[in-house]
Amino acid sequence: MPQQIKTLCWVGNIDGHLRLLDQTQLPVTLAYVDCRTVEDVSEAICSLRVRGAPAIGIAAAYGVCLAIQHAEHNIKLRACEACEYLAASRPTAVNLAWALDRMRYVLQQESVDNNSRELAKRLLGEACAIHQEDRQQCASIGRHGVKLLNSLPQGAGILTHCNTGALATGGDGTALAVIFALADAGAKPHVFVDETRPLLQGARLTAWELKQRGIEATLICDSMAAQVMKEGRVAACITGADRIAANGDTANKIGTYGVATLAQAHGIPFYVAAPTSTFDLTLDSGDLIPIEERGASEITCGFGKVTAPDQIAVYNPAFDVTPKELISAIVTELGVIQPVSTQEIANSVFIPERKVKVL
Amino acid sequence: MPQQIKTLCWVGNIDGHLRLLDQTQLPVTLAYVDCRTVEDVSEAICSLRVRGAPAIGIAAAYGVCLAIQHAEHNIKLRACEACEYLAASRPTAVNLAWALDRMRYVLQQESVDNNSRELAKRLLGEACAIHQEDRQQCASIGRHGVKLLNSLPQGAGILTHCNTGALATGGDGTALAVIFALADAGAKPHVFVDETRPLLQGARLTAWELKQRGIEATLICDSMAAQVMKEGRVAACITGADRIAANGDTANKIGTYGVATLAQAHGIPFYVAAPTSTFDLTLDSGDLIPIEERGASEITCGFGKVTAPDQIAVYNPAFDVTPKELISAIVTELGVIQPVSTQEIANSVFIPERKVKVL
Repeated sequence: MPQQIKTLCWVGNIDGHLRLLDQTQLPVTLAYVDCRTVEDVSEAICSLRVRGAPAIGIAAAYGVCLAIQHAEHNIKLRACEACEYLAASRPTAVNLAWALDRMRYVLQQESVDNNSRELAKRLLGEACAIHQEDRQQCASIGRHGVKLLNSLPQGAGILTHCNTGALATGGDGTALAVIFALADAGAKPHVFVDETRPLLQGARLTAWELKQRGIEATLICDSMAAQVMKEGRVAACITGADRIAANGDTANKIGTYGVATLAQAHGIPFYVAAPTSTFDLTLDSGDLIPIEERGASEITCGFGKVTAPDQIAVYNPAFDVTPKELISAIVTELGVIQPVSTQEIANSVFIPERKVKVL
Repeated sequence: MPQQIKTLCWVGNIDGHLRLLDQTQLPVTLAYVDCRTVEDVSEAICSLRVRGAPAIGIAAAYGVCLAIQHAEHNIKLRACEACEYLAASRPTAVNLAWALDRMRYVLQQESVDNNSRELAKRLLGEACAIHQEDRQQCASIGRHGVKLLNSLPQGAGILTHCNTGALATGGDGTALAVIFALADAGAKPHVFVDETRPLLQGARLTAWELKQRGIEATLICDSMAAQVMKEGRVAACITGADRIAANGDTANKIGTYGVATLAQAHGIPFYVAAPTSTFDLTLDSGDLIPIEERGASEITCGFGKVTAPDQIAVYNPAFDVTPKELISAIVTELGVIQPVSTQEIANSVFIPERKVKVL
């Protein structure tokens, strides 16, 4: 991705604002949206102007900074309310809650005075740290993930679902970072991009990122994944994750579970790439992950044209859960978890415990 | 489907024309298109104004009748050329070739004089017979198919892909005819309708037909089929077919092979419903079935809105082949073929041999 295109960035000092690349307009229009209030950030997250588990965590952290600008009283309370408000914007991706917990942790440090400038500085510092760490984690995920794929022949086909690149994170991505790293290593991968209905993040965003990077890509409808696997054109599948339970069950964009099931039926390895902030070790299994359901109109008139009869019932889960049995390995910024099991995850994933009080 | 809505019909006498319900405009607009030349019919088939393997066979047969209107010389030759021209309009569905072979067979009967009125009458008679027989075959498919599903509990979930109803045939449909017959028997099925990218025949046509009939239906994206199966909401899958090889391998709308693979992974029976005219006993296996590839724009801007970056490579096979091992049974107008094997098919499918000479 050319340096000048930024998925999200903070503009200015503590009185500044959050600038987002409006992903709903891609790939046709490259437009930025400036968020100056916490409500702007919530709207951007809910309407998927910014999306991707790591990116919405970063955006939400910056949103807390916006919430206390111009406030002179009850600043900590106001920030806490913003955390609660933003946490409700999307339920499945745990990185959102994780980032907001980091902001809450700052708020409850006794050393932090309830003085607006000092607090605002500390909160913006934390949001920037989350952003900066994510950038580094993406690079590490890419580096570790390449180990899984570098035995594939030159030009090997890799299938991915949804968008997990620079547009989904603060850095180069998760699953796409692995593919970028593989390409950087000279392997010339050929990426099969599931279009990812209903919102077409694959067609609109992943295909666009791969073109920007000069990586060979073929766009397919989700219903064609089985066929390209059958044709022997897919050597591996790799996706991101929105929440990973303690046993390795992984929530990700709807359709991922189908891809993983098809991969197993064709003897193709299926990998997940995500930072450790995506793990929710409080949940024993994926059955406990809350799954967001979204509006019917995403399916019935998603292309700006009515494509289904009036009043038809619609089921539109935004995510599904892939059981650990279907996952060959999970790549994090710390390394490769393989086999995927509660024990291996407990051994590999270190998430600093931050006891967050409700103020 | 209300009686007044006709998928296709011949209007008038031998000087009449073919009237088609323009399916590209459904479900928003109910518009008919009148085909007065063989070119009109070819355009309607190529652009999917009329689609569904049995329906395009019927439309093509009527198309031959249009080709010889107003002709006074070389009428047989002209009709033969029309057969060849129409046969090329779509390569996968064998019913098209089958119907045109029936028209060619009429042409080469020695008893038929090369007199335009007499020949036109005979050809229109044959086209009407193909249409009428298809109507009866749909009813028989429904009646036989119910035997496979009537042990399911009330309200059982049935998943289908693409459109296989009255809009796809001259009668009530193939796979949907089975569901209609099941509903008529009081079973209250709940149909999960795959939207069927890229052209959304499920969302636009199947959902519409089910609503017209008052059958409970839930529309899903193709990528959600695995999830509804995992949730235990699907008791059976049933689809149509565009060509069935001698061993039972079945070409059908792209995505069908994925559904069948997912059904097997979840222990759900997968059924195919089609008239015997869909069998191509000259092909030993599905590997030999020609698969139509369609234009990239169906995926990149299918609904009048650009949803992928410029110049992205696209793979758009219109069909895939489901191997017989994944098919629990095939329903035809003659009965149920189970297990699906070369032997059972040879015992069950009788296709009258019509040696067609090239004139």
